[in-house]
Amino acid sequence: MSKIKVLGFDADDTLWVNEIYYRETERELVKLLKDFADEKTVMEQLYHLEIQNLPLYGYGAKGFMLSMIETAIQTSGHRVPAQIIEKIIGLGKELLNKPVILLDGVREVLEYFKTKIPVVLVTKGDLLDQERKLRKSGLASCFHHIEIMSDKQEENYRKLLQRLTIQPEEFMMIGNSLKSDVLPLLKLGSWAVHIPYHTTWIHEKTNEDPHQWERFIAIKKLAALLDILDNEGNILIHE
Amino acid sequence: MSKIKVLGFDADDTLWVNEIYYRETERELVKLLKDFADEKTVMEQLYHLEIQNLPLYGYGAKGFMLSMIETAIQTSGHRVPAQIIEKIIGLGKELLNKPVILLDGVREVLEYFKTKIPVVLVTKGDLLDQERKLRKSGLASCFHHIEIMSDKQEENYRKLLQRLTIQPEEFMMIGNSLKSDVLPLLKLGSWAVHIPYHTTWIHEKTNEDPHQWERFIAIKKLAALLDILDNEGNILIHE
Repeated sequence: MSKIKVLGFDADDTLWVNEIYYRETERELVKLLKDFADEKTVMEQLYHLEIQNLPLYGYGAKGFMLSMIETAIQTSGHRVPAQIIEKIIGLGKELLNKPVILLDGVREVLEYFKTKIPVVLVTKGDLLDQERKLRKSGLASCFHHIEIMSDKQEENYRKLLQRLTIQPEEFMMIGNSLKSDVLPLLKLGSWAVHIPYHTTWIHEKTNEDPHQWERFIAIKKLAALLDILDNEGNILIHE
Repeated sequence: MSKIKVLGFDADDTLWVNEIYYRETERELVKLLKDFADEKTVMEQLYHLEIQNLPLYGYGAKGFMLSMIETAIQTSGHRVPAQIIEKIIGLGKELLNKPVILLDGVREVLEYFKTKIPVVLVTKGDLLDQERKLRKSGLASCFHHIEIMSDKQEENYRKLLQRLTIQPEEFMMIGNSLKSDVLPLLKLGSWAVHIPYHTTWIHEKTNEDPHQWERFIAIKKLAALLDILDNEGNILIHE
């Protein structure tokens, strides 16, 4: 029987609301640009620029703000006035200041494991923004270690496991993104628990099916994690 | 006699050129806005906005880009055209793509310590940007660990020492900023080596004098570090 020595949790849309704030901000952007372009044009241009800028900016709100500004310039044929650019910067600042709303069962599950198994928070995006969200969440004391990665790729997880000095099969990652939180871990030989969130950024979508992997588990509510692991890290279901 | 178990190096303007790229970018911004405001007005507004936005954006190039855009909007009284905003974004992208030019003695000193004492890179700013610079520098293999902090305050250094499981007096930090790389370490009881760079961002300036601290060392060239520490980490000068 496998024994888990460290648990990893994704943050955005696993512990707290995030993606819907981005969707709200996009809807406001579409409204601001309605005299220049229709919704479809704005949204397509924004996604195109976000992906194009990703290697340079990385994930997070500041890169998103800069891509929104470029979207305004390009979809308006350089006609967008400074007032609207200023409002876009305001939308971005609001996004950075959104409240941190915990998802169902998060506090209970983290408090349960706190004294039993070391838990690491594994997230990507702007360093300061993620630190601020963690502080606002009131959950900081539940984590043994915070790992903020520029991207959640297999190689970065491999380095994390090395630093934690554990074997892949002794690590279990829990998150809402198959692409970032589940598949790279399964490929490494770790356990991965998928808990879907109702909204997913297109870039996080994947056609790969995790069900071929033995160490894949899908749950609908975070509290179900307590049926999967006992308080010593023993896995209570299949392998 | 003290023995150093881990060495910490700052990155920007300690290992490689950084601040002069920001100064160049600011000069280009002043040129772009010359029809709206004079140099002094632009520079003062930019600095004001950078400091105002710091708690929200943190350090790094993306926050700097957003503050440059706000500067353009405000100093032009909302008259700046989208073409100029687009050029400012272009300046920021160029800044992110600047070559990494190592400072004198960096490669030699890091290669010397590589097999002798664990060396950590301790930096602040955008996560992805710092990772990119490290990769471009060709120095990644010299570091045992990379620590990217949202801010270089005493508390963050304290946590780093805890993770490294060493005592403050077993750590020596080397950097160009008295405020970020020297004073917080001295206050913790660690050693700090100051190696000044010819250009310092106003925000990094301080009136505090580090000479009152016994574990403060000032050097003019990085190679002088080899006269301060032997290859086992023994400190060869005063305490």
